[in-house]
Amino acid sequence: MTKLDEKEIIKIFQKSLGNKTSEDVETFRLGKNLGVIKTDTLVESTDIPPGMNPHDAARKSVVACVSDFAAKGVWPLYGIVSVAIPKKYSAKKIKEIADGFRDASSEFGFSILGGDTNEGKELVMSVSVFGIAQGIVRRGGAKAGDSIIVTGPFGNTSAGLKLLLEKKKANQKYARKIKNAVYRPNPRLGFGILAGTYMSSAMDSSDGLSTTLVEMASQSKKKFAITNIPKELELEQFAAQNRLDVMDLVFNGGEEYEIVGTVPQRNLKKIKQIAKLNKIHLIEIGMVEKGNGVFLAESNKRITSGGWLHFKN
Amino acid sequence: MTKLDEKEIIKIFQKSLGNKTSEDVETFRLGKNLGVIKTDTLVESTDIPPGMNPHDAARKSVVACVSDFAAKGVWPLYGIVSVAIPKKYSAKKIKEIADGFRDASSEFGFSILGGDTNEGKELVMSVSVFGIAQGIVRRGGAKAGDSIIVTGPFGNTSAGLKLLLEKKKANQKYARKIKNAVYRPNPRLGFGILAGTYMSSAMDSSDGLSTTLVEMASQSKKKFAITNIPKELELEQFAAQNRLDVMDLVFNGGEEYEIVGTVPQRNLKKIKQIAKLNKIHLIEIGMVEKGNGVFLAESNKRITSGGWLHFKN
Repeated sequence: MTKLDEKEIIKIFQKSLGNKTSEDVETFRLGKNLGVIKTDTLVESTDIPPGMNPHDAARKSVVACVSDFAAKGVWPLYGIVSVAIPKKYSAKKIKEIADGFRDASSEFGFSILGGDTNEGKELVMSVSVFGIAQGIVRRGGAKAGDSIIVTGPFGNTSAGLKLLLEKKKANQKYARKIKNAVYRPNPRLGFGILAGTYMSSAMDSSDGLSTTLVEMASQSKKKFAITNIPKELELEQFAAQNRLDVMDLVFNGGEEYEIVGTVPQRNLKKIKQIAKLNKIHLIEIGMVEKGNGVFLAESNKRITSGGWLHFKN
Repeated sequence: MTKLDEKEIIKIFQKSLGNKTSEDVETFRLGKNLGVIKTDTLVESTDIPPGMNPHDAARKSVVACVSDFAAKGVWPLYGIVSVAIPKKYSAKKIKEIADGFRDASSEFGFSILGGDTNEGKELVMSVSVFGIAQGIVRRGGAKAGDSIIVTGPFGNTSAGLKLLLEKKKANQKYARKIKNAVYRPNPRLGFGILAGTYMSSAMDSSDGLSTTLVEMASQSKKKFAITNIPKELELEQFAAQNRLDVMDLVFNGGEEYEIVGTVPQRNLKKIKQIAKLNKIHLIEIGMVEKGNGVFLAESNKRITSGGWLHFKN
């Protein structure tokens, strides 16, 4: 998928439909509460990597919505699905897709009410999820002095995609881990729901870590100083083995359904408890400061939104 | 689109996701009210007829949802869109699509909150619409003695599609009318909202008149006796000129976004007033009786769900 094109397309849509602040979910007043809606489109030719079965593909389209709800601290209550299916698909394959939706909604505790099916040239799955909340954790609420946290290490999905798409090499154990990261991503719903009230801002990271940080810093009108890069030793070994840029894998990959959040110091202990309770590998990656932009603290090097800047010298 | 395949696919999905009664919209409890959600998928290769511009295609995907809300007597409040766009599309074309969504939502008085875009092999547009209601007009509420009404004549869209797809002939004035029926369908939102409380059952007719009548009779466990076929003289002339079966055009076409409803005798006057107010060409087509199935009253010939039965002879 051409990232630039997608950004341009989104701009055209936002301009036509009225410029609103970008959020992970759409909200509207519902009495004293907020109605929360999110839709996600998964397209066969661009979003389904080789070897992903129809069941997991349907699950992935649900995960994309659930991860956005998780980052905003909102429970998904109901979903509807809309699927374009190629004529050549067998009944077995169609059943796997339907079962994938059912199992994913059950995994994340909500109901799929129904939907619409149609014939198309390639598989396209749209999932829309609805919830109710008193409020949401915004992208733009970071305050100077807050810690920046992420709910897991980054880069494994990129590594997995490189393994699957570009025939890169990995040892057997790590290969299994990174393929699993691609096929069965885990949105942080339990953590997000409980942690929501303790975070000053949060965002789903599936557009890539750099894009996410830049967006949060920009909406918060703050500087994000990154002191600790959320990379694992195994990823560094994989990058070295395959002559890949580890920073590129960590910052510009995308498709990691982690939460990036900012936490006031007084809430850090609580957030860590919630992470432990939910078996989340919480990583503090930096601090919010006065100023603007995202920087690597050590080198004061600026991080821009994914894909353009590479970290090679 | 293969109708049989679509039915089979829907069955697979319904079986996986839990068998629920088919309705035009999905509903869930929202305090004392019902939350109402509907999604519709419009696919370039199967749903966009030749000559339909991107603006009207986007409008059509909105119309499909609005028509279902109309038939259930529910105002659409908010929408989200999810669009897969081919790489080759120009910014101009994408803007026309976005403007189509904006103009359609404004035409039908609701807000599009946002959505998702993606790259795909062909244009696929999913629209999800949300509303709140105290209740909905069900498909299964017809009572013996009710009149069966439709909000307009049938067959013009089929005729239009035959003109566009199969090079059939029509005089200039009628050609314009039936092409317009294809390109700019008019869901009966104003009528549906006001008439909802006066109808015992209703359904959107976009899957075809025969399918709609059979579904309503079946869910209502009643016999629908059709005494008056909602066809216009112009359609009969078009059918004769092109050697087409006028009954097939009327009953098995589809894509007419009319409301089919049943009305208790005591409410008929009121319904007619509402139709007049909304400039709707209301047609009484028959009566609900004890029994089951849909029949042409004159010949006692059974009407089955579109596509299989033809009315020749």
